[in-house]
Amino acid sequence: MKYSQLFSKTLKTAPNATDTVNHRLLVQAGFVRQVMAGVYTYTPLGLRVLNKISQIVREEMDKIGGQEVLMPLMHPSSLWKKSGGWDKVDVLFKLKSRTGKDYALAVSHEETVTTLAREFIHSYKDMPMSIYHIQWKFRDELRSKSGIMRGREFLMKDLYSWHATQADFDVFYAKAKAAYLRVFERLGLTAKVTEASGGAFTEKVSYEFEVLSEAGEANILYCQMCDYCVNVDDIKTYHEGDDCPKCGKDKLRPAKAAEVGNVFDLGQKYTKAFDLTFIDEKGEKKYPIMGCYGIGISRTMGVLVETFHDERGIIWPRGVAPFEVQLVSIGGGSAEVEERAEAVYKELTQAGVEVLFDDRAEVSAGAKLADADLIGCPTRVIVSEKTGMQVEVKKRSEKDSTLMEVNELLKKLQTLKD
Amino acid sequence: MKYSQLFSKTLKTAPNATDTVNHRLLVQAGFVRQVMAGVYTYTPLGLRVLNKISQIVREEMDKIGGQEVLMPLMHPSSLWKKSGGWDKVDVLFKLKSRTGKDYALAVSHEETVTTLAREFIHSYKDMPMSIYHIQWKFRDELRSKSGIMRGREFLMKDLYSWHATQADFDVFYAKAKAAYLRVFERLGLTAKVTEASGGAFTEKVSYEFEVLSEAGEANILYCQMCDYCVNVDDIKTYHEGDDCPKCGKDKLRPAKAAEVGNVFDLGQKYTKAFDLTFIDEKGEKKYPIMGCYGIGISRTMGVLVETFHDERGIIWPRGVAPFEVQLVSIGGGSAEVEERAEAVYKELTQAGVEVLFDDRAEVSAGAKLADADLIGCPTRVIVSEKTGMQVEVKKRSEKDSTLMEVNELLKKLQTLKD
Repeated sequence: MKYSQLFSKTLKTAPNATDTVNHRLLVQAGFVRQVMAGVYTYTPLGLRVLNKISQIVREEMDKIGGQEVLMPLMHPSSLWKKSGGWDKVDVLFKLKSRTGKDYALAVSHEETVTTLAREFIHSYKDMPMSIYHIQWKFRDELRSKSGIMRGREFLMKDLYSWHATQADFDVFYAKAKAAYLRVFERLGLTAKVTEASGGAFTEKVSYEFEVLSEAGEANILYCQMCDYCVNVDDIKTYHEGDDCPKCGKDKLRPAKAAEVGNVFDLGQKYTKAFDLTFIDEKGEKKYPIMGCYGIGISRTMGVLVETFHDERGIIWPRGVAPFEVQLVSIGGGSAEVEERAEAVYKELTQAGVEVLFDDRAEVSAGAKLADADLIGCPTRVIVSEKTGMQVEVKKRSEKDSTLMEVNELLKKLQTLKD
Repeated sequence: MKYSQLFSKTLKTAPNATDTVNHRLLVQAGFVRQVMAGVYTYTPLGLRVLNKISQIVREEMDKIGGQEVLMPLMHPSSLWKKSGGWDKVDVLFKLKSRTGKDYALAVSHEETVTTLAREFIHSYKDMPMSIYHIQWKFRDELRSKSGIMRGREFLMKDLYSWHATQADFDVFYAKAKAAYLRVFERLGLTAKVTEASGGAFTEKVSYEFEVLSEAGEANILYCQMCDYCVNVDDIKTYHEGDDCPKCGKDKLRPAKAAEVGNVFDLGQKYTKAFDLTFIDEKGEKKYPIMGCYGIGISRTMGVLVETFHDERGIIWPRGVAPFEVQLVSIGGGSAEVEERAEAVYKELTQAGVEVLFDDRAEVSAGAKLADADLIGCPTRVIVSEKTGMQVEVKKRSEKDSTLMEVNELLKKLQTLKD
């Protein structure tokens, strides 16, 4: 994609400095625009990142046997009255049709999915079964000031699973937790599996996946010697400086963290409420054990920016960058440089590399390099009068640049991919 | 995918026979489930079809230079008050936040997209520009009885374009119309470019893309000698039996039709309402000409079923079928047949063919063949005691089957793809 043709453009000055880092950088670099607090449009740049995060999540859900479906956003009130959510969930958006019918906007999909599963799960032979969807959701937040990290409208992946026995559930629960760790690893994030309360969903302990971040809203205690981590907003058993209850080798340390995912053992709460039963091996009627597993896709995009940036802009991890390479021509209008840059652009894109080519002739070298740093593609490639038949290559995360042939660059990019 | 592991299953008996064909067949074959009138869940089978339609639309929009974005579903009332839609659009869903703020659910995105374009279009050099998104929308319909053809919640592709001059708009308008015809051709549909009124959007003539269908809600008059077609619900100039106003060679004939797309010359209506201006070549401030171009993705899926089915089930066109091949093992539990079918399944999937493998051992041959006809994959492949090292191949749309080697089948499928 040529920058001159790209719909969205960078802003010379940052929006309000009091905003969160993710809002500020994503707006300035042209990835999103706020439609109202907590509600955003994703530009071509932003949508590419959102889609890449979704695709990584999708692949890992497929690997553990999840089947992708798509459930709607508007639900009849009857579904939410059955689960009790209609009166209990304070962030549930409600609306009325012209004919006076009450609807809810999806804040989650347990109600819809359990009703759906009733149609297809009848026997122990139909389980284990797991389905997921990637869909927008709505929360009637009183305040929404964390950029795309706490949206009134936000994109989530929800996986749901059903099991004939607790033992079978436990096996899948462990698999799902491992899949989550793979997702966050592929995204470049270190997520801590954190004990938390089950909230409105269950009385059992649940697990949150928390990324240490000053922009996060969760207060956690964690151990640096093992992987123990607990959300102390929810579970008040432990305090700063207590010995780690898991390994005992260190004191618990406090930190702010951002929740990017969670997994819940729902037990039989929803299968009972929605009368989802199955016939077991002995011919007896039973309620399946159900689990739900969420990842905040749009929130994770915000957490990535909070985690990977410097004073000049975003530093996207390779797997989710809008483009692999930002190609910059610096020539002050020299036809030779422009031709050479065009040729490099063609060679890279034909080799399958995703390139954002800053082809603007009227813009200064300084402004173009500042934009490349702001947008944050992992690899910056410069063609100038000095580079000749080579190109100047610099990683966004590093300081030093190297002159190399395009062939060599292609080999390096291929090595990173493998 | 093995049918035994597939989340959704067929129903032995059709749901209520008074329903529309698309609702009845899509529910019975396990592609969708109704959550409430006009609101559906898409199962793994249904989502595959929906995604394939979206992808064809996406590719054709990319080809004419459209850049994909994603705009939100919930809008502040201020946007809709500015365009007048807040009071005028009777199908607009409205809701209130806990703090008393008024929001609208997207019934269309002209308001949002024009506000967005204001951020990036400032000069004649920034145009022509076109962006699109594929997003859910909501309509507060009084009745919603046409299956997924008229949803209260439905998936649409909207393309929007901006132009410095009417002449430039006209060029793009023709391009967009041609792209639409390519989309419907790839979907296997014959869509007639139909003159219609601009409705709430514009006072100019607009064009609908109408597919002849008894399940459609539009009344059209068309000429069989040329491509003239007019929506007579909107434009009452012509009557049945009038001479064709375009070629004059035949009388206009009446038909029911389903609208699958539309294109509007919006003129400066929205650019003026939202004060989107640009500086032209002479340094003068002007309002761009704007166009909008819609395709109903979920509706088109319904129209496809209305168009392509017989008394036994759906007959998916190749480009949008959930799977290319439905592989059926008929062996009454013979280990030899089961092994052979497994081997064929492996060979086909490893060659990149999308296969739904009906591997159920306890189900009769008759029931399996009925399910294959109901689900409607384009090619049915049978492995039985009679087929030996060959397979029995039948197109869903044809009567005769042929015995052939798997290699030959693979060659045939490849030929169809090219």
